[in-house]
Amino acid sequence: MRLADSFRSERFGAVRIHELQRVIELDSGAVHDTGQASLSAGSRVVPPDAMRAVESQMVIVVPCMNETRSVIEGVLSGIPHDCLIVLVSNSDRLPVDRYEIEAQTLEQFCRLAGRSAISIHQKDPGLAAAFKAAGMEELIGDDGLIRNGKGEAMLVGMAVAAMSGRRYLGYVDADNYVPGAVNEYCKAYAAGLHLADSPYSMVRISWHSKPKLRDGRLFFSRKGRSSQITNEWLNRFLAEYSGFGTEVIATGNAGEHAMSLDLGLRLRLAGGFAVEPYEYMDLFEQFGGVLESSDRDVMAGSVPILQIETRNPHFHDNKGEEHVQGMRMQALNVIYHSPVTLPSVRKAIVDFMVAQGALEPGQEPPKERVYPPVGSLDLELLYDGLDAEALTFRQFDGRASAGLPPSPPIARASIPRQKV
Amino acid sequence: MRLADSFRSERFGAVRIHELQRVIELDSGAVHDTGQASLSAGSRVVPPDAMRAVESQMVIVVPCMNETRSVIEGVLSGIPHDCLIVLVSNSDRLPVDRYEIEAQTLEQFCRLAGRSAISIHQKDPGLAAAFKAAGMEELIGDDGLIRNGKGEAMLVGMAVAAMSGRRYLGYVDADNYVPGAVNEYCKAYAAGLHLADSPYSMVRISWHSKPKLRDGRLFFSRKGRSSQITNEWLNRFLAEYSGFGTEVIATGNAGEHAMSLDLGLRLRLAGGFAVEPYEYMDLFEQFGGVLESSDRDVMAGSVPILQIETRNPHFHDNKGEEHVQGMRMQALNVIYHSPVTLPSVRKAIVDFMVAQGALEPGQEPPKERVYPPVGSLDLELLYDGLDAEALTFRQFDGRASAGLPPSPPIARASIPRQKV
Repeated sequence: MRLADSFRSERFGAVRIHELQRVIELDSGAVHDTGQASLSAGSRVVPPDAMRAVESQMVIVVPCMNETRSVIEGVLSGIPHDCLIVLVSNSDRLPVDRYEIEAQTLEQFCRLAGRSAISIHQKDPGLAAAFKAAGMEELIGDDGLIRNGKGEAMLVGMAVAAMSGRRYLGYVDADNYVPGAVNEYCKAYAAGLHLADSPYSMVRISWHSKPKLRDGRLFFSRKGRSSQITNEWLNRFLAEYSGFGTEVIATGNAGEHAMSLDLGLRLRLAGGFAVEPYEYMDLFEQFGGVLESSDRDVMAGSVPILQIETRNPHFHDNKGEEHVQGMRMQALNVIYHSPVTLPSVRKAIVDFMVAQGALEPGQEPPKERVYPPVGSLDLELLYDGLDAEALTFRQFDGRASAGLPPSPPIARASIPRQKV
Repeated sequence: MRLADSFRSERFGAVRIHELQRVIELDSGAVHDTGQASLSAGSRVVPPDAMRAVESQMVIVVPCMNETRSVIEGVLSGIPHDCLIVLVSNSDRLPVDRYEIEAQTLEQFCRLAGRSAISIHQKDPGLAAAFKAAGMEELIGDDGLIRNGKGEAMLVGMAVAAMSGRRYLGYVDADNYVPGAVNEYCKAYAAGLHLADSPYSMVRISWHSKPKLRDGRLFFSRKGRSSQITNEWLNRFLAEYSGFGTEVIATGNAGEHAMSLDLGLRLRLAGGFAVEPYEYMDLFEQFGGVLESSDRDVMAGSVPILQIETRNPHFHDNKGEEHVQGMRMQALNVIYHSPVTLPSVRKAIVDFMVAQGALEPGQEPPKERVYPPVGSLDLELLYDGLDAEALTFRQFDGRASAGLPPSPPIARASIPRQKV
């Protein structure tokens, strides 16, 4: 993959946010003239071997809710072979057990492609029991099951990813009509994580355009409705500290993003659709540090955030206006409630929300749920719970399906013991 | 890339048409357990090195007419780095010179990506003069310029490709909104040409689905309107010989297809939208041979046609009903007029066209224009003509743009002299 160079970045303590980089070539070939000439052209190639090195250490978590079999098959076909797939479903199980159809689709794909995967249903009582045993009761709702929500699905996926012992984690939404876009996301993760070259790193995707229906014809929108607002307020958060206006953050709501698990295990994930913007806030809270220049130099660049603009359109089902309004306000809630947000920004957020009719005058924005880091879990207990009690927990073993000695994606003996 | 195995094929003389094969994984990884296990799973992997070997010998011809800069940029970004790009434009030059914008876009892309390309405008008087000098006056219309039409653009592209000395040629339409689909087409060409393993081979694409607007919502149609009819009649052509009904041909109108240039230089291309279905007819005419079983064994499999169903939706601008009706009837015209089509099929075609209102009773379907093989051209004279007179003929040299010693894609001294 060839990416345009990123020349500018903004720092907040140890967090270094790189400006958006475009994808120039999806496939940049095998052999390249590297060095000065390549750099002076304003672009940078990540060669296939470097991509594979990341992919073979990467878990792709696919949160899934009621997608059709053919859409799921397409998404799976786009995930590079060397990545481990983890499907976290919150699909309906009645009147038709859609999870069973999903698990069958995944199993068939793994058999045909000789690869490995894991699947689990978010509302499996055994999953809730396992999380409780492993030390995260916060994730469990009044019904005794894991709470609904996208952030919750992502947290479950991260925990499963951590058990596999791999080093990287990427998220890909299941509602994507373009397998080539899924492939590009994964390639951009691999390229970005390679370039970031840090144990704590994150890659966030900004899609090139989003096809929408408008007056009976297709229109390629450049910006998402809620993204614009989320990015604007995250940038205002930064500008209020630096005194300089900025547009550096372009991926506040990025559903498609990846990170090193060393970083992921330290992050506190928020519930629902607050999860993506809250990642930024949690990075600022945990790694923002003191802003005196001596500290800045010590911490410089230690948590790089790369933002990559992909080439493919982001083409998915239209979830409607209510969903968007919800996402927008959840982002503002987390910015408002962060202890590192300056009072002037908090006041402006309240004014904005009142003007939007999303808040009564005099009220405070609601608090979003925030969970402890996945690194605080006892992963062996989690595994034992899943293995013993979670009936929807499936491991598909590509080696076994290819007639080779079995090697399930998670082996009890090699679950990392290290806690954050 | 991983493809489902093709178990069945139909032969017509030396032409062996393989049934449609699905793409299972866009990226099947670097290292694989090959042999028995892989085969028994019903799929086949083409490893990256084998793909690159084809790509580095492949020219991708992009016929282009009045597409926007951003659509063209997307298409270019999807073409694998090692392929040589040839843009053949028939875009408007007034009031705005769209060809100049296209050439600039291509030049910029080549500079940024350090790669090579060629561009030419179909209506360049110098191009017509060069074709005349090289021995193909048939391509020139009454105005003294190359005729309009897609087949004509493809012929020009093939001739340019032949001058480069590369071994393979693939076509990718410029009106594609999904760069990942373009990438998949090229990868499928490379995988298919590798698997075909014959000096005379062809790979034709059937797209997975086509998003269309219907009653204000999106609908993923599995089949194109004109493809259904073209395929039906091509299959009927075959069935009339064998006495067995067949549905093997699924790519009669495939705009996206690739072939070895050894094969391409022998083909007679038809004009306009007849070009794609006529490729089948010309294969039948040239390689159909006698159908006695002794001959069949001798010639067996010497011209494999692979058909690959890609994963990505084929998402392009809607050209309207007139375009489709034209394509459909041009396909029937070429089947009707082929000397190898049996009389019963010819009669049925006339009946069908009359019933469709496309033909008056008693009339004969019009004859489509068919050109001599590109292999009959004197390529050195063609190059000299282009070099001296064709003002729109541009060679973009990736090596020079990377600060290396120049090496234009076509070098006069290494133009193949061999004629068919």
